[in-house]
Amino acid sequence: MGYKQVILVIDELKLPKGKMAAQVAHASVEAVLKSDKADVTDWRLEGMPKVVLKVPTEKDLFKYMQQAKDAGLVVAIIIDAGKTTIAPNTTTCGAIGPDDEKKIDSLVSNLKLM
Amino acid sequence: MGYKQVILVIDELKLPKGKMAAQVAHASVEAVLKSDKADVTDWRLEGMPKVVLKVPTEKDLFKYMQQAKDAGLVVAIIIDAGKTTIAPNTTTCGAIGPDDEKKIDSLVSNLKLM
Repeated sequence: MGYKQVILVIDELKLPKGKMAAQVAHASVEAVLKSDKADVTDWRLEGMPKVVLKVPTEKDLFKYMQQAKDAGLVVAIIIDAGKTTIAPNTTTCGAIGPDDEKKIDSLVSNLKLM
Repeated sequence: MGYKQVILVIDELKLPKGKMAAQVAHASVEAVLKSDKADVTDWRLEGMPKVVLKVPTEKDLFKYMQQAKDAGLVVAIIIDAGKTTIAPNTTTCGAIGPDDEKKIDSLVSNLKLM
């Protein structure tokens, strides 16, 4: 099957691009480390497809993460310590998968690319 | 010891922020999967410190990656298939570590944050 990972970023934070990239990488790595190794291996062989999407607010992020959990998918939510550009303990983004792209697409198909 | 990972992005590409975030995450994950598991575990316990830096050109990226390899550090260079916003087979970024932050800082201390 085709594998993918998606990372949902809270758009209203308007994170600077370098900060956003680091947060997305945190989420991506954490979800990979929590995932089944066979799934990660297959996803890696497919070139690690990975898409960054935007959600308006933290509330929206939590809604999608809960739906993904309910569907049995691995999720990783990132809360930034906020030592630098944002307030302490700010939720910034969350990753889903890597897993079956059809399962993931069915949850996030209405979200737009960041 | 303190662990960190750095990801160097080629600044002249002027990647859109979502694209950049996905490329940085590719590099971060690939370097993590190539790294010693004990190092990854320690780095994860420290909150996965991760910094995104910029290099002017591909030539500069390769220079830093080679220096990191020569110092015995794990590196991962990302070449994008270029199906979307950039030309095919474009080198976009590279990750170093996670490893001893002092070793990494000694190589990249002159680079600026993305």
